[in-house]
Amino acid sequence: MQRKREREQQQLYLIEGAHVVQEALKQAKPQYLLATQAYATADWLQDWQADLIWISDEVAHALAETVTNQGIFAAMPLPAQVQPDTLTGSWLLLDRVQDPGNIGTMVRTADAAGLTGVVLGTGSVDQFSPKLIRSMQGSQFHIQVFSGALSEWIAKFKAIGTPVYGSELNPQAVSFREIQPAHNFALIMGNEGQGMSDTLLQQTDQNLFIPMQGAAESLNVAIAAGVLLFQLQAVDKD
Amino acid sequence: MQRKREREQQQLYLIEGAHVVQEALKQAKPQYLLATQAYATADWLQDWQADLIWISDEVAHALAETVTNQGIFAAMPLPAQVQPDTLTGSWLLLDRVQDPGNIGTMVRTADAAGLTGVVLGTGSVDQFSPKLIRSMQGSQFHIQVFSGALSEWIAKFKAIGTPVYGSELNPQAVSFREIQPAHNFALIMGNEGQGMSDTLLQQTDQNLFIPMQGAAESLNVAIAAGVLLFQLQAVDKD
Repeated sequence: MQRKREREQQQLYLIEGAHVVQEALKQAKPQYLLATQAYATADWLQDWQADLIWISDEVAHALAETVTNQGIFAAMPLPAQVQPDTLTGSWLLLDRVQDPGNIGTMVRTADAAGLTGVVLGTGSVDQFSPKLIRSMQGSQFHIQVFSGALSEWIAKFKAIGTPVYGSELNPQAVSFREIQPAHNFALIMGNEGQGMSDTLLQQTDQNLFIPMQGAAESLNVAIAAGVLLFQLQAVDKD
Repeated sequence: MQRKREREQQQLYLIEGAHVVQEALKQAKPQYLLATQAYATADWLQDWQADLIWISDEVAHALAETVTNQGIFAAMPLPAQVQPDTLTGSWLLLDRVQDPGNIGTMVRTADAAGLTGVVLGTGSVDQFSPKLIRSMQGSQFHIQVFSGALSEWIAKFKAIGTPVYGSELNPQAVSFREIQPAHNFALIMGNEGQGMSDTLLQQTDQNLFIPMQGAAESLNVAIAAGVLLFQLQAVDKD
Protein backbone atom coordinates (compact mmCIF):
# COMPACT_ATOMS: atom_id res chain seq x y z
CA MET A 1 0.00 0.00 0.00
CA GLN A 2 3.05 2.25 -0.40
CA ARG A 3 2.09 3.07 -3.99
CA LYS A 4 -0.97 4.87 -5.26
CA ARG A 5 -1.76 2.18 -7.83
CA GLU A 6 -1.68 -0.54 -5.19
CA ARG A 7 -3.85 1.52 -2.87
CA GLU A 8 -6.43 1.97 -5.61
CA GLN A 9 -6.38 -1.71 -6.58
CA GLN A 10 -6.85 -2.83 -3.00
CA GLN A 11 -9.03 0.17 -2.03
CA LEU A 12 -7.01 0.33 1.19
CA TYR A 13 -4.42 2.61 2.74
CA LEU A 14 -2.15 2.07 5.71
CA ILE A 15 -1.79 4.20 8.80
CA GLU A 16 0.64 3.60 11.64
CA GLY A 17 1.11 4.65 15.25
CA ALA A 18 -1.15 4.24 18.27
CA HIS A 19 -2.46 7.80 18.37
CA VAL A 20 -3.38 8.07 14.68
CA VAL A 21 -4.87 4.57 14.61
CA GLN A 22 -7.11 5.51 17.53
CA GLU A 23 -8.22 8.67 15.70
CA ALA A 24 -8.95 6.62 12.57
CA LEU A 25 -11.05 4.06 14.46
CA LYS A 26 -13.34 6.86 15.66
CA GLN A 27 -14.19 7.55 12.00
CA ALA A 28 -14.32 4.24 10.20
CA LYS A 29 -14.08 0.49 10.60
CA PRO A 30 -10.66 -0.83 9.54
CA GLN A 31 -10.24 -3.63 7.02
CA TYR A 32 -7.84 -5.11 9.59
CA LEU A 33 -5.49 -4.05 12.37
CA LEU A 34 -1.92 -5.27 12.80
CA ALA A 35 -0.28 -5.09 16.23
CA THR A 36 2.70 -6.51 18.06
CA GLN A 37 2.46 -8.19 21.47
CA ALA A 38 3.24 -4.80 23.03
CA TYR A 39 -0.51 -4.11 22.56
CA ALA A 40 -1.73 -7.40 24.10
CA THR A 41 -3.23 -5.58 27.07
CA ALA A 42 -4.21 -2.27 25.42
CA ASP A 43 -7.72 -1.43 26.62
CA TRP A 44 -8.73 0.56 23.57
CA LEU A 45 -8.05 -2.46 21.34
CA GLN A 46 -10.51 -4.70 23.19
CA ASP A 47 -13.41 -3.65 20.95
CA TRP A 48 -11.45 -4.54 17.83
CA GLN A 49 -10.30 -8.09 18.61
CA ALA A 50 -12.19 -9.52 15.61
CA ASP A 51 -10.21 -7.30 13.23
CA LEU A 52 -6.85 -7.78 14.89
CA ILE A 53 -3.90 -9.72 13.48
CA TRP A 54 -0.91 -10.16 15.76
CA ILE A 55 2.45 -9.55 14.11
CA SER A 56 6.08 -9.99 15.20
CA ASP A 57 8.45 -7.08 15.78
CA GLU A 58 10.24 -8.09 12.57
CA VAL A 59 7.06 -7.78 10.51
CA ALA A 60 6.30 -4.43 12.14
CA HIS A 61 9.78 -3.24 11.28
CA ALA A 62 9.35 -4.35 7.66
CA LEU A 63 5.93 -2.68 7.36
CA ALA A 64 7.00 0.63 8.84
CA GLU A 65 8.37 3.31 6.57
CA THR A 66 10.28 4.89 9.44
CA VAL A 67 13.32 3.64 11.32
CA THR A 68 11.40 3.44 14.55
CA ASN A 69 7.84 2.17 14.65
CA GLN A 70 5.16 1.85 17.30
CA GLY A 71 4.19 -1.69 16.38
CA ILE A 72 0.61 -0.91 15.38
CA PHE A 73 -0.96 -0.40 11.97
CA ALA A 74 -4.43 -0.16 10.47
CA ALA A 75 -5.45 -0.94 6.90
CA MET A 76 -8.30 1.47 6.30
CA PRO A 77 -10.77 1.48 3.41
CA LEU A 78 -10.00 4.19 0.89
CA PRO A 79 -12.95 6.58 1.27
CA ALA A 80 -15.02 7.19 -1.83
CA GLN A 81 -14.15 10.62 -3.21
CA VAL A 82 -17.22 12.51 -2.11
CA GLN A 83 -18.27 16.10 -2.24
CA PRO A 84 -18.33 18.10 0.98
CA ASP A 85 -21.70 18.44 2.71
CA THR A 86 -21.32 22.19 2.68
CA LEU A 87 -18.90 24.70 1.22
CA THR A 88 -19.51 27.26 3.93
CA GLY A 89 -16.72 27.90 6.39
CA SER A 90 -13.02 28.51 5.76
CA TRP A 91 -10.87 26.45 3.45
CA LEU A 92 -7.21 26.04 2.56
CA LEU A 93 -6.43 25.11 -1.06
CA LEU A 94 -2.98 23.82 -2.06
CA ASP A 95 -1.73 24.42 -5.59
CA ARG A 96 0.92 21.81 -6.50
CA VAL A 97 2.59 21.82 -3.09
CA GLN A 98 5.16 19.02 -3.31
CA ASP A 99 6.58 18.23 0.10
CA PRO A 100 4.44 15.84 2.19
CA GLY A 101 5.94 17.36 5.35
CA ASN A 102 4.77 20.85 4.32
CA ILE A 103 1.30 19.58 3.37
CA GLY A 104 0.90 17.64 6.60
CA THR A 105 2.01 20.64 8.66
CA MET A 106 -0.52 22.82 6.83
CA VAL A 107 -3.35 20.33 7.44
CA ARG A 108 -2.44 20.33 11.17
CA THR A 109 -2.29 24.14 11.15
CA ALA A 110 -5.66 24.40 9.38
CA ASP A 111 -7.07 22.08 12.04
CA ALA A 112 -5.64 24.22 14.85
CA ALA A 113 -6.91 27.42 13.24
CA GLY A 114 -10.43 25.98 13.09
CA LEU A 115 -10.80 25.65 9.33
CA THR A 116 -13.48 23.54 7.69
CA GLY A 117 -11.27 21.71 5.23
CA VAL A 118 -8.25 21.46 2.97
CA VAL A 119 -8.25 20.74 -0.78
CA LEU A 120 -5.16 19.22 -2.42
CA GLY A 121 -5.10 20.52 -5.98
CA THR A 122 -4.16 18.43 -8.98
CA GLY A 123 -0.38 17.96 -8.95
CA SER A 124 -0.04 17.87 -5.17
CA VAL A 125 1.03 14.73 -3.32
CA ASP A 126 -1.55 11.92 -3.19
CA GLN A 127 -3.77 12.32 -0.17
CA PHE A 128 -3.15 8.76 1.01
CA SER A 129 0.61 8.54 0.50
CA PRO A 130 2.26 7.10 3.63
CA LYS A 131 4.49 10.15 4.11
CA LEU A 132 1.55 12.53 4.02
CA ILE A 133 -0.58 10.29 6.25
CA ARG A 134 2.24 10.29 8.79
CA SER A 135 2.78 14.03 8.55
CA MET A 136 -0.89 14.92 9.11
CA GLN A 137 -0.71 13.21 12.54
CA GLY A 138 -4.43 12.51 12.64
CA SER A 139 -5.63 16.02 11.76
CA GLN A 140 -7.21 14.54 8.61
CA PHE A 141 -9.77 12.97 10.96
CA HIS A 142 -10.64 16.36 12.50
CA ILE A 143 -11.16 18.41 9.35
CA GLN A 144 -12.22 17.48 5.83
CA VAL A 145 -9.54 16.76 3.23
CA PHE A 146 -10.35 16.55 -0.49
CA SER A 147 -8.44 16.28 -3.76
CA GLY A 148 -9.47 17.96 -6.99
CA ALA A 149 -9.01 20.61 -9.64
CA LEU A 150 -8.70 23.95 -7.82
CA SER A 151 -10.29 26.00 -10.59
CA GLU A 152 -13.52 24.04 -10.07
CA TRP A 153 -13.37 24.61 -6.31
CA ILE A 154 -12.69 28.33 -6.82
CA ALA A 155 -15.76 28.61 -9.06
CA LYS A 156 -17.92 26.93 -6.42
CA PHE A 157 -16.68 29.23 -3.64
CA LYS A 158 -17.31 32.31 -5.77
CA ALA A 159 -20.81 31.06 -6.61
CA ILE A 160 -21.76 31.16 -2.91
CA GLY A 161 -20.04 34.48 -2.27
CA THR A 162 -17.05 33.14 -0.32
CA PRO A 163 -14.00 35.35 -0.97
CA VAL A 164 -11.10 33.48 -2.56
CA TYR A 165 -7.62 34.74 -1.69
CA GLY A 166 -4.46 33.82 -3.53
CA SER A 167 -0.99 34.28 -2.07
CA GLU A 168 2.08 35.55 -3.86
CA LEU A 169 5.51 37.07 -3.29
CA ASN A 170 4.46 40.31 -4.93
CA PRO A 171 4.63 43.57 -2.96
CA GLN A 172 2.02 44.94 -5.40
CA ALA A 173 -0.46 42.47 -3.94
CA VAL A 174 -2.63 43.26 -0.92
CA SER A 175 -0.96 43.03 2.51
CA PHE A 176 -2.56 40.24 4.53
CA ARG A 177 -3.00 42.69 7.42
CA GLU A 178 -5.62 44.58 5.43
CA ILE A 179 -8.04 41.64 5.36
CA GLN A 180 -10.71 41.52 8.04
CA PRO A 181 -10.97 38.15 9.79
CA ALA A 182 -14.03 36.18 8.68
CA HIS A 183 -15.72 32.83 9.08
CA ASN A 184 -15.98 32.25 5.33
CA PHE A 185 -12.98 32.37 3.01
CA ALA A 186 -10.77 30.21 0.81
CA LEU A 187 -7.00 30.74 0.85
CA ILE A 188 -4.72 29.26 -1.81
CA MET A 189 -1.05 28.49 -1.11
CA GLY A 190 1.29 27.65 -3.99
CA ASN A 191 4.20 25.41 -4.90
CA GLU A 192 7.34 25.72 -2.74
CA GLY A 193 9.55 27.04 -5.54
CA GLN A 194 7.18 28.56 -8.07
CA GLY A 195 4.28 29.74 -5.97
CA MET A 196 0.75 29.71 -7.34
CA SER A 197 0.11 29.25 -11.05
CA ASP A 198 -0.68 32.41 -13.01
CA THR A 199 -3.95 30.86 -14.16
CA LEU A 200 -5.19 30.43 -10.60
CA LEU A 201 -3.90 33.86 -9.51
CA GLN A 202 -6.26 35.34 -12.10
CA GLN A 203 -9.27 33.44 -10.77
CA THR A 204 -9.09 34.76 -7.19
CA ASP A 205 -10.88 37.75 -5.69
CA GLN A 206 -7.70 39.18 -4.17
CA ASN A 207 -4.08 38.08 -3.93
CA LEU A 208 -2.30 38.57 -0.62
CA PHE A 209 1.32 38.86 0.36
CA ILE A 210 3.17 38.92 3.66
CA PRO A 211 5.41 42.01 3.83
CA MET A 212 8.95 40.96 4.75
CA GLN A 213 10.97 43.39 6.80
CA GLY A 214 14.26 41.58 6.82
CA ALA A 215 16.54 40.47 4.02
CA ALA A 216 14.90 37.05 3.81
CA GLU A 217 13.78 36.10 0.35
CA SER A 218 10.83 33.98 1.29
CA LEU A 219 9.06 32.20 4.08
CA ASN A 220 8.59 28.47 4.16
CA VAL A 221 5.14 27.80 2.61
CA ALA A 222 3.77 26.21 5.79
CA ILE A 223 4.93 29.16 7.92
CA ALA A 224 3.28 31.57 5.48
CA ALA A 225 0.07 29.52 5.61
CA GLY A 226 0.15 29.63 9.43
CA VAL A 227 0.61 33.41 9.53
CA LEU A 228 -2.20 33.95 6.98
CA LEU A 229 -4.69 31.48 8.48
CA PHE A 230 -4.40 32.84 12.02
CA GLN A 231 -4.97 36.33 10.62
CA LEU A 232 -7.85 35.47 8.26
CA GLN A 233 -9.84 33.13 10.49
CA ALA A 234 -12.28 35.00 12.72
CA VAL A 235 -12.06 34.09 16.39
CA ASP A 236 -15.24 33.79 18.40
CA LYS A 237 -15.09 35.52 21.74
CA ASP A 238 -15.46 33.24 24.73
CA MET B 1 34.07 19.87 10.14
CA GLN B 2 30.94 17.76 10.58
CA ARG B 3 31.50 17.48 14.34
CA LYS B 4 31.50 20.23 16.91
CA ARG B 5 34.84 19.12 18.40
CA GLU B 6 36.52 19.22 15.01
CA ARG B 7 35.04 22.63 14.25
CA GLU B 8 36.40 23.97 17.53
CA GLN B 9 39.83 22.43 17.01
CA GLN B 10 40.11 23.86 13.50
CA GLN B 11 38.15 27.04 14.31
CA LEU B 12 36.38 26.53 10.99
CA TYR B 13 32.93 25.56 9.82
CA LEU B 14 31.72 24.53 6.38
CA ILE B 15 28.94 26.04 4.31
CA GLU B 16 27.73 24.80 0.95
CA GLY B 17 25.75 26.07 -2.01
CA ALA B 18 26.30 29.06 -4.28
CA HIS B 19 23.71 31.34 -2.72
CA VAL B 20 24.74 30.84 0.91
CA VAL B 21 28.46 31.03 0.05
CA GLN B 22 27.85 34.40 -1.63
CA GLU B 23 25.98 35.65 1.45
CA ALA B 24 28.85 34.47 3.67
CA LEU B 25 31.49 36.24 1.56
CA LYS B 26 29.70 39.55 2.11
CA GLN B 27 30.34 39.12 5.84
CA ALA B 28 33.76 37.53 6.25
CA LYS B 29 36.84 36.30 4.43
CA PRO B 30 36.85 32.52 4.02
CA GLN B 31 39.75 30.33 5.13
CA TYR B 32 39.40 28.75 1.69
CA LEU B 33 36.81 28.08 -1.01
CA LEU B 34 36.26 24.75 -2.74
CA ALA B 35 34.60 24.67 -6.15
CA THR B 36 34.15 22.31 -9.07
CA GLN B 37 34.86 23.28 -12.68
CA ALA B 38 31.20 24.25 -13.00
CA TYR B 39 32.26 27.56 -11.38
CA ALA B 40 35.29 28.18 -13.66
CA THR B 41 33.56 31.18 -15.25
CA ALA B 42 31.49 32.44 -12.32
CA ASP B 43 31.92 36.22 -12.18
CA TRP B 44 31.33 36.56 -8.48
CA LEU B 45 34.23 34.18 -7.75
CA GLN B 46 36.79 36.36 -9.62
CA ASP B 47 37.63 38.36 -6.49
CA TRP B 48 38.34 35.19 -4.52
CA GLN B 49 40.78 33.40 -6.84
CA ALA B 50 43.58 33.45 -4.22
CA ASP B 51 41.40 31.52 -1.77
CA LEU B 52 40.00 29.07 -4.29
CA ILE B 53 40.82 25.36 -4.49
CA TRP B 54 39.42 23.48 -7.47
CA ILE B 55 37.89 20.11 -6.62
CA SER B 56 36.51 17.22 -8.66
CA ASP B 57 32.84 16.26 -8.72
CA GLU B 58 33.78 13.18 -6.69
CA VAL B 59 35.34 15.27 -3.93
CA ALA B 60 32.30 17.58 -3.95
CA HIS B 61 30.03 14.56 -3.60
CA ALA B 62 32.08 13.23 -0.67
CA LEU B 63 32.12 16.64 1.08
CA ALA B 64 28.41 17.28 0.72
CA GLU B 65 26.06 16.04 3.40
CA THR B 66 23.19 15.93 0.96
CA VAL B 67 22.53 13.60 -1.95
CA THR B 68 22.71 16.43 -4.45
CA ASN B 69 25.25 19.19 -4.11
CA GLN B 70 25.99 22.44 -5.91
CA GLY B 71 29.73 21.86 -6.17
CA ILE B 72 30.77 24.84 -4.07
CA PHE B 73 31.82 25.09 -0.43
CA ALA B 74 33.43 27.64 1.87
CA ALA B 75 35.42 26.95 5.02
CA MET B 76 34.64 29.95 7.19
CA PRO B 77 36.40 31.02 10.39
CA LEU B 78 34.33 30.22 13.47
CA PRO B 79 33.34 33.68 14.76
CA ALA B 80 34.46 34.48 18.30
CA GLN B 81 31.41 34.26 20.60
CA VAL B 82 30.77 37.94 21.05
CA GLN B 83 28.09 39.91 22.80
CA PRO B 84 25.58 41.79 20.67
CA ASP B 85 26.25 45.49 20.12
CA THR B 86 22.83 46.29 21.45
CA LEU B 87 19.98 44.40 23.07
CA THR B 88 17.31 46.76 21.78
CA GLY B 89 15.00 45.43 19.10
CA SER B 90 13.09 42.18 18.98
CA TRP B 91 14.56 38.76 19.71
CA LEU B 92 13.62 35.11 19.42
CA LEU B 93 15.01 32.78 22.11
CA LEU B 94 14.95 29.00 21.64
CA ASP B 95 14.80 26.74 24.70
CA ARG B 96 16.21 23.28 23.87
CA VAL B 97 14.66 23.11 20.39
CA GLN B 98 16.10 19.93 18.89
CA ASP B 99 15.34 19.74 15.20
CA PRO B 100 17.80 21.66 12.98
CA GLY B 101 15.05 22.02 10.36
CA ASN B 102 12.75 23.71 12.87
CA ILE B 103 15.52 26.00 14.12
CA GLY B 104 16.59 26.98 10.62
CA THR B 105 12.98 27.69 9.63
CA MET B 106 12.58 29.89 12.73
CA VAL B 107 15.78 31.83 11.95
CA ARG B 108 14.46 32.43 8.40
CA THR B 109 11.07 33.46 9.81
CA ALA B 110 12.71 35.83 12.34
CA ASP B 111 14.66 37.34 9.45
CA ALA B 112 11.48 37.83 7.38
CA ALA B 113 9.61 39.31 10.35
CA GLY B 114 12.39 41.88 10.82
CA LEU B 115 13.76 40.68 14.14
CA THR B 116 17.13 41.76 15.50
CA GLY B 117 18.43 38.34 16.46
CA VAL B 118 17.96 34.76 17.60
CA VAL B 119 19.52 33.13 20.67
CA LEU B 120 19.98 29.35 20.79
CA GLY B 121 19.71 28.36 24.44
CA THR B 122 21.91 25.76 26.09
CA GLY B 123 20.74 22.32 24.94
CA SER B 124 19.73 23.43 21.44
CA VAL B 125 21.57 22.21 18.34
CA ASP B 126 25.08 23.66 17.83
CA GLN B 127 24.88 26.87 15.85
CA PHE B 128 27.44 25.68 13.29
CA SER B 129 26.21 22.13 12.72
CA PRO B 130 26.00 21.44 8.97
CA LYS B 131 22.28 20.58 9.13
CA LEU B 132 21.44 23.86 10.84
CA ILE B 133 23.72 25.87 8.56
CA ARG B 134 21.91 24.37 5.58
CA SER B 135 18.48 24.95 7.05
CA MET B 136 19.07 28.65 7.81
CA GLN B 137 19.63 29.26 4.06
CA GLY B 138 21.79 32.33 4.66
CA SER B 139 19.42 34.12 7.05
CA GLN B 140 22.15 33.87 9.73
CA PHE B 141 24.02 36.51 7.69
CA HIS B 142 21.02 38.88 7.80
CA ILE B 143 20.23 38.78 11.50
CA GLN B 144 22.37 38.08 14.56
CA VAL B 145 22.54 34.54 15.94
CA PHE B 146 23.98 33.79 19.38
CA SER B 147 24.26 30.81 21.71
CA GLY B 148 24.03 31.02 25.49
CA ALA B 149 22.19 30.42 28.72
CA LEU B 150 18.67 31.85 28.27
CA SER B 151 18.23 32.82 31.93
CA GLU B 152 21.17 35.24 31.54
CA TRP B 153 19.65 36.70 28.37
CA ILE B 154 16.26 37.07 30.05
CA ALA B 155 17.84 38.98 32.92
CA LYS B 156 19.55 41.35 30.48
CA PHE B 157 16.33 42.02 28.57
CA LYS B 158 14.44 42.70 31.77
CA ALA B 159 17.20 45.06 32.93
CA ILE B 160 16.58 47.31 29.92
CA GLY B 161 12.80 47.07 30.15
CA THR B 162 12.24 44.80 27.16
CA PRO B 163 9.20 42.57 27.78
CA VAL B 164 10.03 38.87 27.77
CA TYR B 165 7.25 36.54 26.58
CA GLY B 166 7.23 32.80 27.09
CA SER B 167 5.00 30.47 25.09
CA GLU B 168 3.06 27.51 26.38
CA LEU B 169 0.18 25.18 25.58
CA ASN B 170 -1.80 26.47 28.54
CA PRO B 171 -5.23 28.08 27.97
CA GLN B 172 -4.71 29.85 31.31
CA ALA B 173 -1.88 31.81 29.70
CA VAL B 174 -2.45 35.10 27.85
CA SER B 175 -3.81 34.85 24.29
CA PHE B 176 -1.20 36.16 21.83
CA ARG B 177 -3.89 38.37 20.30
CA GLU B 178 -3.95 40.50 23.44
CA ILE B 179 -0.36 41.69 23.02
CA GLN B 180 0.19 45.00 21.27
CA PRO B 181 2.80 44.85 18.49
CA ALA B 182 6.09 46.49 19.51
CA HIS B 183 9.63 47.08 18.31
CA ASN B 184 11.18 45.71 21.51
CA PHE B 185 10.40 42.26 22.86
CA ALA B 186 11.90 38.84 23.45
CA LEU B 187 9.86 35.73 22.67
CA ILE B 188 10.87 32.27 23.91
CA MET B 189 9.84 29.09 22.07
CA GLY B 190 10.35 25.70 23.73
CA ASN B 191 11.32 22.14 22.97
CA GLU B 192 9.20 20.29 20.36
CA GLY B 193 7.86 17.71 22.79
CA GLN B 194 8.11 19.28 26.21
CA GLY B 195 7.77 22.98 25.52
CA MET B 196 9.61 25.55 27.63
CA SER B 197 11.21 24.56 30.92
CA ASP B 198 9.25 25.48 34.06
CA THR B 199 12.26 27.42 35.32
CA LEU B 200 12.25 29.73 32.30
CA LEU B 201 8.44 30.06 32.29
CA GLN B 202 8.76 31.60 35.76
CA GLN B 203 11.35 34.15 34.62
CA THR B 204 9.23 35.75 31.88
CA ASP B 205 6.98 38.81 32.12
CA GLN B 206 4.04 37.03 30.48
CA ASN B 207 3.43 33.62 28.95
CA LEU B 208 1.44 33.48 25.73
CA PHE B 209 -0.57 30.79 24.05
CA ILE B 210 -2.22 30.41 20.67
CA PRO B 211 -5.90 29.47 21.12
CA MET B 212 -6.67 26.40 19.03
CA GLN B 213 -10.13 26.14 17.59
CA GLY B 214 -9.92 22.71 16.07
CA ALA B 215 -9.21 19.33 17.59
CA ALA B 216 -5.48 19.64 16.91
CA GLU B 217 -3.32 19.05 19.94
CA SER B 218 -0.47 21.32 19.03
CA LEU B 219 1.10 23.38 16.29
CA ASN B 220 4.55 22.66 14.92
CA VAL B 221 6.95 24.87 16.92
CA ALA B 222 8.11 26.79 13.83
CA ILE B 223 4.50 27.49 12.76
CA ALA B 224 3.69 28.75 16.25
CA ALA B 225 6.80 30.97 16.16
CA GLY B 226 5.70 32.39 12.79
CA VAL B 227 2.18 33.18 14.00
CA LEU B 228 3.51 34.83 17.19
CA LEU B 229 6.34 36.83 15.56
CA PHE B 230 4.13 38.32 12.84
CA GLN B 231 1.67 39.35 15.55
CA LEU B 232 4.21 40.72 18.06
CA GLN B 233 6.53 42.58 15.69
CA ALA B 234 5.37 46.15 15.04
CA VAL B 235 5.14 47.04 11.36
CA ASP B 236 6.22 50.50 10.24
CA LYS B 237 3.82 52.14 7.87
CA ASP B 238 5.28 52.91 4.44
